[in-house]
Amino acid sequence: MNVEFINPFLTSLLNVLGTMAQTELKPGKPRIKKDEVACGDVSGLIGMVGPQTKGSFSITFDESLALTIMERMLGERPDSIDEEVTDMVGEITNMVTGGAKNLLGEKGYDFDMATPIVVSGKGHTITHKSDGAKILIPFTSDAGNANIEVSFDKI
Amino acid sequence: MNVEFINPFLTSLLNVLGTMAQTELKPGKPRIKKDEVACGDVSGLIGMVGPQTKGSFSITFDESLALTIMERMLGERPDSIDEEVTDMVGEITNMVTGGAKNLLGEKGYDFDMATPIVVSGKGHTITHKSDGAKILIPFTSDAGNANIEVSFDKI
Repeated sequence: MNVEFINPFLTSLLNVLGTMAQTELKPGKPRIKKDEVACGDVSGLIGMVGPQTKGSFSITFDESLALTIMERMLGERPDSIDEEVTDMVGEITNMVTGGAKNLLGEKGYDFDMATPIVVSGKGHTITHKSDGAKILIPFTSDAGNANIEVSFDKI
Repeated sequence: MNVEFINPFLTSLLNVLGTMAQTELKPGKPRIKKDEVACGDVSGLIGMVGPQTKGSFSITFDESLALTIMERMLGERPDSIDEEVTDMVGEITNMVTGGAKNLLGEKGYDFDMATPIVVSGKGHTITHKSDGAKILIPFTSDAGNANIEVSFDKI
């Protein structure tokens, strides 16, 4: 996988969270994930299938950041990761991937998105099992950390 | 989503685990998942995209069952859910979905599979965020429990 393929996901994520939740994420350095494990409390995952390649995207939030995003969007802070929070994480996953799909389409890389899946559970870890490199970008914010991972076969 | 769409996944799973790991899973009654939450320790997830629909599949194992499957396949039991176990869960996810894809293709329903993602973490829960019904089948075995969930938009 070409590292430049991560940028559309980064751009789309900053745009979605800035617009929807007035939350500024500060990206760290993108890196190729090897043994490293990134933990989080709630994650949105989605599969992608195109004529040139297939792959997967995930976004993982600390609980504190997920609850703060809900608070900034809806004006009320849930006590814990409930169904409203997992719905929001699924929606963010769709929006970020949809934005990246448009940007990648402009470069001639087309794919269709599957439906999102949301995982909740304290300190879970995600492993993408494609044949290509797994690119990870960590983010910090005033309300907690997040990270995204993108992996494609054969680009 | 038509409930009969779950059967190819059920057939394929029983076949894969019986053949690869001499493990017999006993299926419970398929049901439509509403508020119910199914927990597990390691899960394989995959997205599916086709001309008629899109969706997602997940399979979740208790740790004890995942470790026993490894032991029966390789002759050695890992101490915990390590990278070899997540590789195996990713491979099972691919094989079960590939088997179901063939069976559904015979009925005229085609889809392509994305790449699998594996989640590990004690007692995590999975929520499929498609527009269609979420069908859950629980399984019991001599070594622990598993469950599969399938969800498609608009069938």
